[in-house]
Amino acid sequence: MNFNIEKKDFYQGLNITHRACASSNTMPILKGILIEAKKDKGLHLMGTDLEIGIENWVPANVKKEGKIVLPANQLRNIIRELPNEEIDFDVDLERYRANINCLNSQFTINGYNPEEYPQLPDVNIPTELEIPSAKLKKIISEVEFSTSSDQTQPVLTGALMVLENDQIKMVSTNKYRLAYSKIENKNDIDEKLEIIIPGATIKEISSLLEEEGTVNMKVNENYASFDFNDIIVVSRLIEGKFPNFEQVIPDEKNTTITVNTDYLQSAVKRASLIAKLDSNIVSLKSKDNSLIIESEDSDSGSAHEEVPITLEGENHKISIDASYLLDVLKVLEEEKVKLDLIGSLNPLVLKKEASDDYIYLIMPIRPGNEENEGE
Amino acid sequence: MNFNIEKKDFYQGLNITHRACASSNTMPILKGILIEAKKDKGLHLMGTDLEIGIENWVPANVKKEGKIVLPANQLRNIIRELPNEEIDFDVDLERYRANINCLNSQFTINGYNPEEYPQLPDVNIPTELEIPSAKLKKIISEVEFSTSSDQTQPVLTGALMVLENDQIKMVSTNKYRLAYSKIENKNDIDEKLEIIIPGATIKEISSLLEEEGTVNMKVNENYASFDFNDIIVVSRLIEGKFPNFEQVIPDEKNTTITVNTDYLQSAVKRASLIAKLDSNIVSLKSKDNSLIIESEDSDSGSAHEEVPITLEGENHKISIDASYLLDVLKVLEEEKVKLDLIGSLNPLVLKKEASDDYIYLIMPIRPGNEENEGE
Repeated sequence: MNFNIEKKDFYQGLNITHRACASSNTMPILKGILIEAKKDKGLHLMGTDLEIGIENWVPANVKKEGKIVLPANQLRNIIRELPNEEIDFDVDLERYRANINCLNSQFTINGYNPEEYPQLPDVNIPTELEIPSAKLKKIISEVEFSTSSDQTQPVLTGALMVLENDQIKMVSTNKYRLAYSKIENKNDIDEKLEIIIPGATIKEISSLLEEEGTVNMKVNENYASFDFNDIIVVSRLIEGKFPNFEQVIPDEKNTTITVNTDYLQSAVKRASLIAKLDSNIVSLKSKDNSLIIESEDSDSGSAHEEVPITLEGENHKISIDASYLLDVLKVLEEEKVKLDLIGSLNPLVLKKEASDDYIYLIMPIRPGNEENEGE
Repeated sequence: MNFNIEKKDFYQGLNITHRACASSNTMPILKGILIEAKKDKGLHLMGTDLEIGIENWVPANVKKEGKIVLPANQLRNIIRELPNEEIDFDVDLERYRANINCLNSQFTINGYNPEEYPQLPDVNIPTELEIPSAKLKKIISEVEFSTSSDQTQPVLTGALMVLENDQIKMVSTNKYRLAYSKIENKNDIDEKLEIIIPGATIKEISSLLEEEGTVNMKVNENYASFDFNDIIVVSRLIEGKFPNFEQVIPDEKNTTITVNTDYLQSAVKRASLIAKLDSNIVSLKSKDNSLIIESEDSDSGSAHEEVPITLEGENHKISIDASYLLDVLKVLEEEKVKLDLIGSLNPLVLKKEASDDYIYLIMPIRPGNEENEGE
């Protein structure tokens, strides 16, 4: 196995693929990248930790075909430090050993038998759809931060994706807050399909996706794959039943507050400097043309912020976890957001000013019940 | 106590002073900054952890004088997040409580009794000298990375400073490597003076010093102070006897290798990617016009690098800790450096190509004695 490759191209490819490699102490071979050289196609790179797999193609001048598994981190570090020149890559296929030559640098790296590397599942008998990259990137960014990290409830560590004929919905929740986003997309499918994609998968897809182009998505019972820009991401799906999110979203409201997103974010960020010294709780109180945001820590002090608003309905007060509000304000690109309130014991519902395609819900913290957050 | 101050000025001042505040769990008041408002002078800020103290002055419009101690981190975080506007700062001197107002933001922060805050020592009966900032910054940068972190030998955690009539020398060592730097400076002193400045102090001074201006330095038996750009750094000195460094520096050599600093740095950095998987040892071997740098890890692989050199004397081989060589190559701004060698059991001596004002010494690792590094 022998090929020449530009350092830049190789490093870029490794940078994409290595994300799927195992990082913790599992089977050592899973910390490796499978490298396959094909005469007509160049270099095929693949990493997987058995939950997610990422593969991509990199241009290379292949002189002898073959494949090997090499430790991802070590290979990536070496390629990164090499000068921006052509690399000669030669593999001893019997001893699983790679010789890397670039100008005055020579490296030998020991690898693994490629036959022992797991194959990525073929997503067969799939439902197949096309989604513009920018749309998929947007819907993911609006829900990915809201997944749960509690491993005892696996379904909540992922995001629900609902595929219908003319739209795609995504939902994530950790029980104390919920994010829901919807995009229009013509999908050639027979019946509504619901899958739960692991949080780690949607984070990787979101960071790899660019604004341009289209994603070819395939789904079957156990796997989903996403194919874009010469990259394929394959992920195991999470089994189980996602909570009925529609039931949680209130269909009434007493008050709507419209507020500038940046102003609200800055004010909550400052108030949270005091709040985080205690249990991270801020109170929001509408007072006609102002939203008053307050926090207090008995030892350290207090914060009081005022933000101008437009108010429809009665004045209200609600206490919430500041970080839940900051998470969503960081992500939304809208100039203004709307806060819908029913009462201090009902969830706070945040929407974009101009559309109902996004709903973000934060459970209130009952007054005097601050230790028992989320009930 | 009441003053108005620009957010920018206040934040900049806090950013300097807070570096001296205690960070770990000592007396809570030592995590605070002493703030004193004086009508004619503005705001005086001071932080200290009893080892080092930093004070500076910030312009402010003082309406009522007074002083208070406020928690450094909390105050700094709040001021950082405020808009770039004028801040109204009002202190209740009886309850040690500050009220901060800026546009629509109001904060109350609880503080401490300023009378309980330690005073910085007055460096009295001092030896006093003037050093151009750029020179002091340079000499510190050339030795600061080489101090020891071993608290059982306190003198080695600092850097020795030798003050003579016409020069200043600084030396630091962790026993396995040693850095020595010398600058010319007319000092009006009667006799040679040797002090040991804590590593933490020289790091702070180095990061606060700018290229312009002059440092007024005062030294007595127990303290040194450095006065520059409206900042005063006062530090306790380390007691004890610094090892005789002159005795360690070899006065002979068999071989001198002249090499491009960047090439050497890149090559050692790459070789250390393999070396660090084991005990971080690289071997340097001169072979006429090349320096061959090699490292090996029995499990992972090997690296072989070649760098062009000019050689005077015989060919030699020596094994050293790669990180010790990288540390110095990162700092030196010379285009080329010289490596002086006697033999594989003698220290490697690194100098600048054009001057003998800098000497950096790395102890060799005996072949087959890699576990017992530094003998």
